[in-house]
Amino acid sequence: MYSIAIHGGAGTLPRALMTSSQESAYRAGLAAALDAGYAVLDLGGTSLDAVTAAVRMLEDDPLFNAGRGAVLTHEGTVELDASIMDGRTLAAGAVAGVRHVRNPVDLARAVMEHSPHVMLIGAGAEEFALASGMALVPNDHFLTDTRKAQLGRVLAGDARPANELSALGTVGAVARDRAGNLAAATSTGGMTGKRHGRVGDTPIIGAGTYADNAVCAVSATGHGEYFIRAAVAHDICARVAYSGLTLAAAADAVVLDRLQKMGGEGGIIAIDAQGGVVTSFNSEGMFRGARTSGGTREISIYRD
Amino acid sequence: MYSIAIHGGAGTLPRALMTSSQESAYRAGLAAALDAGYAVLDLGGTSLDAVTAAVRMLEDDPLFNAGRGAVLTHEGTVELDASIMDGRTLAAGAVAGVRHVRNPVDLARAVMEHSPHVMLIGAGAEEFALASGMALVPNDHFLTDTRKAQLGRVLAGDARPANELSALGTVGAVARDRAGNLAAATSTGGMTGKRHGRVGDTPIIGAGTYADNAVCAVSATGHGEYFIRAAVAHDICARVAYSGLTLAAAADAVVLDRLQKMGGEGGIIAIDAQGGVVTSFNSEGMFRGARTSGGTREISIYRD
Repeated sequence: MYSIAIHGGAGTLPRALMTSSQESAYRAGLAAALDAGYAVLDLGGTSLDAVTAAVRMLEDDPLFNAGRGAVLTHEGTVELDASIMDGRTLAAGAVAGVRHVRNPVDLARAVMEHSPHVMLIGAGAEEFALASGMALVPNDHFLTDTRKAQLGRVLAGDARPANELSALGTVGAVARDRAGNLAAATSTGGMTGKRHGRVGDTPIIGAGTYADNAVCAVSATGHGEYFIRAAVAHDICARVAYSGLTLAAAADAVVLDRLQKMGGEGGIIAIDAQGGVVTSFNSEGMFRGARTSGGTREISIYRD
Repeated sequence: MYSIAIHGGAGTLPRALMTSSQESAYRAGLAAALDAGYAVLDLGGTSLDAVTAAVRMLEDDPLFNAGRGAVLTHEGTVELDASIMDGRTLAAGAVAGVRHVRNPVDLARAVMEHSPHVMLIGAGAEEFALASGMALVPNDHFLTDTRKAQLGRVLAGDARPANELSALGTVGAVARDRAGNLAAATSTGGMTGKRHGRVGDTPIIGAGTYADNAVCAVSATGHGEYFIRAAVAHDICARVAYSGLTLAAAADAVVLDRLQKMGGEGGIIAIDAQGGVVTSFNSEGMFRGARTSGGTREISIYRD
């Protein structure tokens, strides 16, 4: 079975505040990314290419907190983080604090494939982007009026749910291809009003992203500080590998029990070695979608 | 039992090249840091204070690759990474790519204790240092003639062991205090000639550092890219927690089997919930020391 799952963040609006036109727009964005990733798998492509394609589309969609439409720092700029991992080889790439790279997931992948390193940060990451032939874009490529207004409200001390949701925004994808190889990728703008230089779990291999063909692939979204402290992505894989739990049981143990007790809000998407998709979240909702060669195709926001 | 273990990196000179005066100097530096950390525990202090004290001394010692005496980037500057974790609360702090903070472990601890964040990078981390009342120092505070000469040899293409050793340099400490609380801290300058912005495992919670009172505390040193991909520190804890292995067996499974198969050279120090000290390394040597309330006091470099 080949399959893909994506998420667009755990920071959904409370159901009562989500208008039907907003919901339609989010669903359309998720569907486009899901189908783009699935098409790669369906045509015999790799899981790495599938997660890259899906995350790239979510980065380009201004609705989601990654790439264009990312939330703003305290200073009103955008600082982006991303990571990717190849479950076949355990190769990984990550970037943090980049401000001029249109698709951070592409840069994370370039770090993985074309450098001896796993993680590059800040200006050094952008120097590597240029050396890799990527064109840089001005920081205002990423800015949207919605995020500017959100930052204004946050800086004014308004902590209503419509603003808080942006603390939990991230995008990500996990996939298993026809050859049985797993991959995971995650990308984000972080938290609205974040301090310059703050890095959450997204670019941390083992926290926001992990993939190991023998076990599972995981992409996380939520309050990053807690996800780092709990090493969420690796811990889920470890519980499968060492405790013999199913992926669903391992994910729930970490997200609904351990994280919940720590106060860490958010969720994960994951895929097991056979292509089975699992989602788990302790937030009110999580933008997500899954599609498998078995014929399943689902887009969801809240609990059903 | 209260106890502390420290390391000064897995990048030792081959035994045949180490002069007795060099060996004496390294042993003296390790002993000073070990005893400083142990004194904190002996006086009833916390494991967090003990690992901070030990790592700070290793950062200030120009022999070790952290703080003053750190290895140089390709550009001839110093970029420092550090992290710390409190096993009692799972609180953690990390900094990467800092260039003007005398003791990066202190900054990592300030991030943990005085910010809502876990990880701060680059200029943003230094802004936080200033806001926390730390004085910044010029980058050349960290420079030593030995490291300048090493960089020159590396840039000239000389890959002899005397240069390669610096790729595996790091310092770290793990401790258990009288109250039974565990802590871990790690600090490094990274690899000689590294690309601007490259980050290894040292500031990655779950890779270079992890601590959980219920399980163990780990500080790693080695070729950071492999340690990130294997999520070394968290994986060791996970094997203890979920597979029921002893800490020694878990550490050897990760360092001597998994990492070795991946090609990742280096090692770890760790301490279990009862204060038992474990070291494991697949390199020729690892600068290390351990001291316990049971009366053990050992400084070692090679296998015995």
